Amino acid sequence: MDIEYINGGVCAPQGFKAAGIACGFKSKGKKDLALIVSDVMCTVAAVYTTNKVKGAPLAVTKKNISDGLAKAIICNSGNANTCAPGGIAVAEKTCRLTGKLLGTEAENIIVCSTGVIGQRLEFDRFEKGIPMATAALKGNGCADAAQAIMTTDTVSKMVAVELVLGGKKCRIGGIAKGSGMINPKMATMLAFITTDAAITSEALDKALKEDIRSSFNQICIDGDTSTNDMAVVMANGMASNPTIKGEGEDMERFKRALSMVTVFLAKQLARDGEGASKLIECNVCGAPTHEVAGAIGKSVIASDLFKTAVFGSDANWGRALCAIGYTEGDFSVDNIDVTMSSTKGQVCVCRCSQHEEYSEEAATAILGENEIVIDINMNQGCGQGTAWGCDLTYDYVKINGDYRS
Amino acid sequence: MDIEYINGGVCAPQGFKAAGIACGFKSKGKKDLALIVSDVMCTVAAVYTTNKVKGAPLAVTKKNISDGLAKAIICNSGNANTCAPGGIAVAEKTCRLTGKLLGTEAENIIVCSTGVIGQRLEFDRFEKGIPMATAALKGNGCADAAQAIMTTDTVSKMVAVELVLGGKKCRIGGIAKGSGMINPKMATMLAFITTDAAITSEALDKALKEDIRSSFNQICIDGDTSTNDMAVVMANGMASNPTIKGEGEDMERFKRALSMVTVFLAKQLARDGEGASKLIECNVCGAPTHEVAGAIGKSVIASDLFKTAVFGSDANWGRALCAIGYTEGDFSVDNIDVTMSSTKGQVCVCRCSQHEEYSEEAATAILGENEIVIDINMNQGCGQGTAWGCDLTYDYVKINGDYRS
Repeated sequence: MDIEYINGGVCAPQGFKAAGIACGFKSKGKKDLALIVSDVMCTVAAVYTTNKVKGAPLAVTKKNISDGLAKAIICNSGNANTCAPGGIAVAEKTCRLTGKLLGTEAENIIVCSTGVIGQRLEFDRFEKGIPMATAALKGNGCADAAQAIMTTDTVSKMVAVELVLGGKKCRIGGIAKGSGMINPKMATMLAFITTDAAITSEALDKALKEDIRSSFNQICIDGDTSTNDMAVVMANGMASNPTIKGEGEDMERFKRALSMVTVFLAKQLARDGEGASKLIECNVCGAPTHEVAGAIGKSVIASDLFKTAVFGSDANWGRALCAIGYTEGDFSVDNIDVTMSSTKGQVCVCRCSQHEEYSEEAATAILGENEIVIDINMNQGCGQGTAWGCDLTYDYVKINGDYRS
Repeated sequence: MDIEYINGGVCAPQGFKAAGIACGFKSKGKKDLALIVSDVMCTVAAVYTTNKVKGAPLAVTKKNISDGLAKAIICNSGNANTCAPGGIAVAEKTCRLTGKLLGTEAENIIVCSTGVIGQRLEFDRFEKGIPMATAALKGNGCADAAQAIMTTDTVSKMVAVELVLGGKKCRIGGIAKGSGMINPKMATMLAFITTDAAITSEALDKALKEDIRSSFNQICIDGDTSTNDMAVVMANGMASNPTIKGEGEDMERFKRALSMVTVFLAKQLARDGEGASKLIECNVCGAPTHEVAGAIGKSVIASDLFKTAVFGSDANWGRALCAIGYTEGDFSVDNIDVTMSSTKGQVCVCRCSQHEEYSEEAATAILGENEIVIDINMNQGCGQGTAWGCDLTYDYVKINGDYRS
């Protein structure tokens, strides 16, 4: 194993500090303002939601990092600063104050917001909160920052990996949030990734854009592509490896390590989907192309009918076939095998697109676990892909029937 | 009003009889076999699901009516005859037996099935049931037939209208079913429509294909496009009007009457969505085109987050803006007005894409009713469209978490 999981999250790479504090955007004194800072300037790449309605912070961030450089991320939760009066001005003021306290330009700050749409975001809370967050910055502050970006998430999400690039030990760390309004078309949740690897912003951009196709873009919780979400990677180069410029062995290794970070976070998001009791992983093989395989997997894990069947531990594979059948793309549905498995075992429920005899009792036991794997073989090519989702439960309805109160 | 709603459903037009009986596809002696027969040969048009996985009966029906003619519809519920061994042979035998008992060719029979996917459909039940249904045919049998095609539907759906064409009184009647796996891309539920108007099969086909774009294709219950569904119109010409050939005033009036039938049935389907407690109607105006307006409406009523908010009587209009924003198409999101209304009144919740002050108490009272209207003005063109859906409730999860037991 040349790439290993380690502790520390976004603070694992050299030269990154983080903080998470409470300044009143959320009730009950919950942490709601996260700050992540690099000691030195970073190259940066980001992807943004494809929703036409976009949060004000996205426009400000896009402008700020148009030079491929950034030094810090400031993010509040509890209010999305979207469709809210004066949103752009508030996001700009947030960058100015953060930059001033960190001794850098406002243009080096990445600003994000997540929470309720359509409510005015009061700047006075930032005036109190940003100095508090700056004072709270520390080398082991990742857990606080990961908590401070949560909305309906029930657990915080963080990860880090270590690898060697050009003889130098490098690290990549990340945190993410997102539990509802999750159907990434570009990057529909927040993910903040740090690395001390030296890499140009062009190479970083290429790596991120390739990566999200098989990580964040392959999860779905409720089909609703959010207005505010983004994934951002900051690389400060403090590992002193030979700068990665977009080709070669180091680029490939960096991409594999980045994928270990993003897929880990993507699975954590799916597992913590609003109201979810089970993580569903759908592996598709034998498709005509990787693209079709990925689309089929996503279609299955996004089906409300399939999700509720998994919730009820019902091996209702007809709903998987139905979801495969309405996936866009050119492929045959005549020879599909479906297997369901968990730690309780494995059962083939459909062979050649028809019912395969199996024990309902065994299937129910398998689907009763909290991590379910659906393997689909399309038997017509070499295309492979994986998607992650969660079951649809009473609690999803409960959480979203009364989100704002 | 030159077109009026009347009683009688599919039996309202002259020369149509119907029956619905129980022959063991469903448990507890529930009606599960419907038969609709015209005294004389009919021109016919049909549209089918776009799901790549298709029920066996669809292939048989498509072949049978390729000449544009049919005389009867036979439909069982409780088993979809999809991904089931020998499905085509069972559907063909069903047509042969039905034709034999009605004194016509198997090729004049439309066959449909709806219910669970992947289970063998036993022909012996048809052997018992088809003679029973034939014996039970009657001129006021529509209610029985409408019941016999239900699956998770809680109420049967039927409608009829009367109009004058070329000086002759004509009627159009219809029944429909569908409660889950509903996201029509072509026609994803069952709808059987009869008329005694004289109309060529080409004109009928044109009328139906235009119609479903703004009726059945504009409803969504759970985003799952079914494998089995179809809408079919049979015209037996017994009203003796001058035959409609595809152009002119009578064609336009026929289309308006057809729309009154299909929109009525579509709304009944949405209202009876699995677990639904509320009908949601979304009217969009001011869009660049009718197509974009229809797509925006469908996007809003299909959003799980918006559906759960309506269930919770929460005027969370940000979720509507989010759903508008991820709709495909070229349009601006800068100047959107949103109004919510019901019999309890009306409240404007969003103006120029920003929060509009309103009384949460009044909004909650309005959304507490069982028929909610969302009016969206995009303020940029003359495109209009409407879509219908339902709220997402605990009962949807309950019904689908344990459908098969």
